[in-house]
Amino acid sequence: MLTERTRVRRRSGRGSYDPDLIHAILDEALVSHVGFVVEGQPYVIPTLHARIDDRLYFHGAIANRMLAALRDGVPACVTATLVDGIVLARSAMHHSLNYRSVVVLGTAVPVTEGDEARRALHALVERVQPGRAAHCRPPSEAELSVTAVLALSIEEASAKIRTGPPVDDADDHRLPYWAGVVPLRTVPGVPEPDPALAAGIPFPAAR
Amino acid sequence: MLTERTRVRRRSGRGSYDPDLIHAILDEALVSHVGFVVEGQPYVIPTLHARIDDRLYFHGAIANRMLAALRDGVPACVTATLVDGIVLARSAMHHSLNYRSVVVLGTAVPVTEGDEARRALHALVERVQPGRAAHCRPPSEAELSVTAVLALSIEEASAKIRTGPPVDDADDHRLPYWAGVVPLRTVPGVPEPDPALAAGIPFPAAR
Repeated sequence: MLTERTRVRRRSGRGSYDPDLIHAILDEALVSHVGFVVEGQPYVIPTLHARIDDRLYFHGAIANRMLAALRDGVPACVTATLVDGIVLARSAMHHSLNYRSVVVLGTAVPVTEGDEARRALHALVERVQPGRAAHCRPPSEAELSVTAVLALSIEEASAKIRTGPPVDDADDHRLPYWAGVVPLRTVPGVPEPDPALAAGIPFPAAR
Repeated sequence: MLTERTRVRRRSGRGSYDPDLIHAILDEALVSHVGFVVEGQPYVIPTLHARIDDRLYFHGAIANRMLAALRDGVPACVTATLVDGIVLARSAMHHSLNYRSVVVLGTAVPVTEGDEARRALHALVERVQPGRAAHCRPPSEAELSVTAVLALSIEEASAKIRTGPPVDDADDHRLPYWAGVVPLRTVPGVPEPDPALAAGIPFPAAR
């Protein structure tokens, strides 16, 4: 939803309020950065998130400072960013990054209903590796009792996206400098088994 | 510098206040997330940063909302995060990420001295690609006049790091689930030349 607070102002052509696009960026980003204010000081903490429909979920130990602050119902900002490439221009000025980012504003609420908390924790494990929730021991009652789950409605949100080649001034096109984009992507490496892993347990293929 | 505000509380064994480590993480992270508060609402915006000694620099158009807010001398939080791997545990509860993150608290100041602004912009271009500042047209006076450069002292800062295998409960070690770490890294793809690139200009090797 577009509000005056989420309206993309600079380079507004890069802004979008399309829920499908916002959801897709949130689903691709492995971590988001959560902003909240304590005694006038903003804090920005990286965290794993999971989306179910139009709600974002976070979890952590009950004693976690960020979750404790958010549980108090303070305004929050959750930002997820995917860096897609570096943009090399002929002029220093027009160097840039290609990226897709989402900003969600709102107030988080504790998830107290057991089924919703279980679904959120299931989704959080699935974020780490798709299909993983079926290949590990689910949380016990004791574990659930020390885990805080928070939800934030994806209502007041915007996306901002830069794609494509550099935008140099026409006068600079004659300069003898390479210009273009170097795409970036995150790739998994060779799995490193836990030193205590029992013999004969294969690495699970992602779903 | 360790203060009560930057002390790592949860899993304090993962915290560090070593300037060399803090600098190394900031130098490796291509973007950081800048938190600031406007009318009680926190905002978290991804941005390119560059470090020179113990100062972090940011830049953008004079009209940029984030820079305008920060120029007013409001408290800020700059967080840079590197996700190094996904941690697959035998229990849902102990799934995690390996990461290195830095949180810097402080108040940004506008860089008004021309030489310092030029050095900062030089460093910002070098962040996009090492060696690049020598292979593009430097900023003109007109470009400098519409570019805001801000500096934040890396004084009140902390790092938080998770490395290594999952930490499962001893009782779970007998479970038939794969456990370990899948390392993640960001890799460049094949450079995509600007459609308007003149013939015969080779892609510059990074320094």
